[in-house]
Amino acid sequence: SNTHRIAVLPGDGIGTEVTAATLAVLEPLSKRHGIGLAFEELRAGAFCYRDTGTAMSEETFERASKADAILLGAMGWPEIRAKDGTEIAPQLDLRFRLNLYAGVRPFRALPGVPVALADPRARDIDLVIVRESTEGLFFSRDRGIVTHDMAEETLRITRGVTEKLARFSFGLAQQRAGRRGRQGTVTLVDKANVFRAFAFMRGIFAEIAADHPDVAHGAHYVDAMALDLVRKPWTFDVLPTENMFGDILSDLGAGLVGGMGFAPSADIGDEHAVFQPAHGTAPDIAGKGLANPTATILSAAMMLDWLAGKGAGQAYSDAAAELDAAVDAAFARGLRTADIGGRDGTAAAAMAIAAQLRR
Amino acid sequence: SNTHRIAVLPGDGIGTEVTAATLAVLEPLSKRHGIGLAFEELRAGAFCYRDTGTAMSEETFERASKADAILLGAMGWPEIRAKDGTEIAPQLDLRFRLNLYAGVRPFRALPGVPVALADPRARDIDLVIVRESTEGLFFSRDRGIVTHDMAEETLRITRGVTEKLARFSFGLAQQRAGRRGRQGTVTLVDKANVFRAFAFMRGIFAEIAADHPDVAHGAHYVDAMALDLVRKPWTFDVLPTENMFGDILSDLGAGLVGGMGFAPSADIGDEHAVFQPAHGTAPDIAGKGLANPTATILSAAMMLDWLAGKGAGQAYSDAAAELDAAVDAAFARGLRTADIGGRDGTAAAAMAIAAQLRR
Ligand SMILES: CC(C)[C@H](C(=O)O)[C@@H](O)C(=O)O
Ligand SMILES: CC(C)[C@H](C(=O)O)[C@@H](O)C(=O)O
Repeated sequence: SNTHRIAVLPGDGIGTEVTAATLAVLEPLSKRHGIGLAFEELRAGAFCYRDTGTAMSEETFERASKADAILLGAMGWPEIRAKDGTEIAPQLDLRFRLNLYAGVRPFRALPGVPVALADPRARDIDLVIVRESTEGLFFSRDRGIVTHDMAEETLRITRGVTEKLARFSFGLAQQRAGRRGRQGTVTLVDKANVFRAFAFMRGIFAEIAADHPDVAHGAHYVDAMALDLVRKPWTFDVLPTENMFGDILSDLGAGLVGGMGFAPSADIGDEHAVFQPAHGTAPDIAGKGLANPTATILSAAMMLDWLAGKGAGQAYSDAAAELDAAVDAAFARGLRTADIGGRDGTAAAAMAIAAQLRR
Repeated sequence: SNTHRIAVLPGDGIGTEVTAATLAVLEPLSKRHGIGLAFEELRAGAFCYRDTGTAMSEETFERASKADAILLGAMGWPEIRAKDGTEIAPQLDLRFRLNLYAGVRPFRALPGVPVALADPRARDIDLVIVRESTEGLFFSRDRGIVTHDMAEETLRITRGVTEKLARFSFGLAQQRAGRRGRQGTVTLVDKANVFRAFAFMRGIFAEIAADHPDVAHGAHYVDAMALDLVRKPWTFDVLPTENMFGDILSDLGAGLVGGMGFAPSADIGDEHAVFQPAHGTAPDIAGKGLANPTATILSAAMMLDWLAGKGAGQAYSDAAAELDAAVDAAFARGLRTADIGGRDGTAAAAMAIAAQLRR
């Protein structure tokens, strides 16, 4: 059938607000395109942990993993911590357990949204970080060793996951090349000058690159990339990288194009995928209706597109394109969310975007 | 005596050029202030490795470690690699072997040098990253395990080094508070929400903070810091962090204030210190006389200041202040190095700065 089941995990703080706003936009959109989205809301996150002792029950995990896609708000709360001092982050468990190795984080400047850099070319930013999301330093989560005198974590990179990450990145570059009307470029971000594990990663990317002669291929040290994302971000296309590096660089990327409120993401595996804004739960503004829902709405567009790629049909990719265009149009016509100094709260932003759907 | 022995390691590529330019400025400066600097030039780096089989001989290490301070250009060359695929970087060995735990990397906007951000407050950037430089992920250098199917590196944080790093950071904040005429702030940059080792680090900083009630103290996740260094870098003061994080964030910081040509650094331990620009050997412009020597000259000013702190006397700190002021004055009066689109090469920049010394 043309109905798809979406597990919705609003999470904590503004996660619940941006998720509600996104569902309000998806409602009329799916009607117009005749696509059936059946939403099942599930509870997980820091407050769930506080109230029930578990951040995500096995039943919730089972249900989420049986859905066709997962839409997630944001999870975590500074004051609610595990016994080892870390925060509650069941979204990381989803990435690990569902093997969502490709954390896709696209960055582009929306019309009317101020960019951070003085150089006018910053309006041409159009890059995607592909953050490996199941291993790297995050392999060490819950595995760190701490004594009175020292602590250790393990960064792990495997051939299997790296090959998948590389194939995904080259495929994405091919896909984007069509849309951008120029050759795609994959630039691996590593620290191969100092660490063997990154020299290993670089070698695997070079092997997979050989299978994709139509895509340009390079590699960049992560420190140099942090510099170049400030100096000339408009020159990059697809940037695969290790988990921790991707976490850091994707916040940097968001800063360039207006902040976390404009940074959607998709954690994609061979079978499952989670779509969520790259931002956190924002305790300082939670519950006030001020959060910018744009990142979540753009994440939902990525979800529709991904479902289309999985065989859901053309209507899904049409809906995705229309949603993307509606976000652009809303900002082009004056939508100004609070995070960029405007007066539009969560609901107003969702309404402004929904209003651009039916033209 | 008032003579101090400086081991000079020019290294590779533009390292040799910026070092020569710096010595040319230090010459008249030290004469004017009646301070004796005895320079001993030593060979180390990638070309040394290629020609002799060792990147830094034991004799060179001995001599360098017996000097009062070490001035270093830049080391490494992409085509010259160790058997495990990594680059030749004896400057890392110096950091490890001499226990140079505090990698001090200050960032401020020089007059006339364009900053990257559109916000005018970016001209007020005045922050210091203190990159721990002997452990963290870099503990794993030369220790990475690689098989056909996977690779692992170990991130290590010890109580002893973290306590020293914290004390150093709070001391630096106190010192800067006087100069800036406002309370100092130490913001630890970690990833304590996910990793036990960083929760451990955060705990140690909180202990040391209690001994420094005059300094404000906070902590920030590294991804959020990457965002905030783009959104509001003018709000930060002293930013201690783990080795790998500091490597990434310090290139980001350099990007904000004109690039690596404006990023000095000092790797400081209890007994020894190495002063060097944060940039690399720049193979693309090496040998052309185009490199900007400012970062190295500012590193030399940090060296004079550090020697003063070690009892070399007031003349050293006077000379440091004069050198800093001369750099500012030269750029204020029109010096424009090639990296910021100007026409002044290495020698012209050094002359323009030297010309501001004797007013
Ligand atoms: C909240 C946190 C655990 C998470 C991460 O580190 O992956 C977030 O920063 C992200 O980028 O999705
Ligand atoms: C050249 C490289 C080994 C070095 C490092 O990673 O520390 C450099 O990037 C630095 O920041 O000093």
